[in-house]
Amino acid sequence: MSLIENLNWRHAVKAFDPTKKVSEENVEKIIEATRLTPTSSGLQQFRVVLVTNQEIKEKLAQGALNPECMKECSHVLVFAAWDTYTAERIDKVYDFTTEERGLPKGRFNSYTDKLKELYLNLPDEENFAHTARQSYIGLGLAMAQAAELKVDSCPAEGFDNKHLDEVLELDKYGLKSVSLLYIGVADNDRDWIKPMKKVRIPREEFVIEIN
Amino acid sequence: MSLIENLNWRHAVKAFDPTKKVSEENVEKIIEATRLTPTSSGLQQFRVVLVTNQEIKEKLAQGALNPECMKECSHVLVFAAWDTYTAERIDKVYDFTTEERGLPKGRFNSYTDKLKELYLNLPDEENFAHTARQSYIGLGLAMAQAAELKVDSCPAEGFDNKHLDEVLELDKYGLKSVSLLYIGVADNDRDWIKPMKKVRIPREEFVIEIN
Repeated sequence: MSLIENLNWRHAVKAFDPTKKVSEENVEKIIEATRLTPTSSGLQQFRVVLVTNQEIKEKLAQGALNPECMKECSHVLVFAAWDTYTAERIDKVYDFTTEERGLPKGRFNSYTDKLKELYLNLPDEENFAHTARQSYIGLGLAMAQAAELKVDSCPAEGFDNKHLDEVLELDKYGLKSVSLLYIGVADNDRDWIKPMKKVRIPREEFVIEIN
Repeated sequence: MSLIENLNWRHAVKAFDPTKKVSEENVEKIIEATRLTPTSSGLQQFRVVLVTNQEIKEKLAQGALNPECMKECSHVLVFAAWDTYTAERIDKVYDFTTEERGLPKGRFNSYTDKLKELYLNLPDEENFAHTARQSYIGLGLAMAQAAELKVDSCPAEGFDNKHLDEVLELDKYGLKSVSLLYIGVADNDRDWIKPMKKVRIPREEFVIEIN
């Protein structure tokens, strides 16, 4: 099926069947599509925290807008972004890229110097605003991959970020949570949104054409 | 081809052949995948400005980090998000959704009341930060759709947003620009990044598992 067909198939599932799990094979495909996310300057400023531990999920449910989804879904993908830019983080990505491409070390120095000049002079919050944005590209691709596999999912922003960061000890990794993607198997009886029509504004309203 | 194969196929093209255009059929598919973007509370807080006018592209190139891509690509998709939330904007989306679903008017009033309570008490910049994030989900899906069609593309954030907003008169629509996607046909001779290996951090580093 095409991406458009898959996007038409999916919806934000409102209830998951707690007795059913997504296969490891499908989880890995969702992770892989997310790992391939294009990001600003190729810096891959976000990570995925994959939560399956039920006790931890129960703790996270305390701060969630949809606690039942948190508890009953099969896997929680937490999208977490760099809390700021540092010279070390930028260098690490470009050193790895240079090595993987068999290029001379320092090949991208003039570029990374520019990145450092830009980001290291900005406050952390402004940098995090930028890294967080990148993670949404990944959230979109994760949803698209789940839909391709006919894995039910529900994205979520409504949660207590601070609580979640503390429970998952994200500061250890220099990360802050941004969004969640619950994946699992929908409980059709309780997924009240399923029978409803998918609604999007019409193409004429969505696009402004400058010909 | 699968999404993963398509994401492996794509890269951020560094030079486009100015004599070649993307077919209208393919442009419409990219628009359609983007229109189907899931967004926070289904509010569809962003629009796509589709620029093909060469004179306008030349003007926009003045503020672009990669002016040649702007001038030489086939179509520019400008991702532009609501400059803030307003009661009118929220109501318009939910009135339309309710109507399309054949539900009684006001069916989602308690939900939209909550959204208004949340957003209308926040400063415009904070609201824009939120609407802008949603547009990145769309940027990701637009890149995925382009890749599915083997349409070359390059995402870009590096541009003078204020200049672009002025040239495109985005304030008329209550929008502010966030990112760009150039689509076109790569000029393989000048697209220096094409022969290079795609590099992503390894799966072990990308995922933090909480089992």
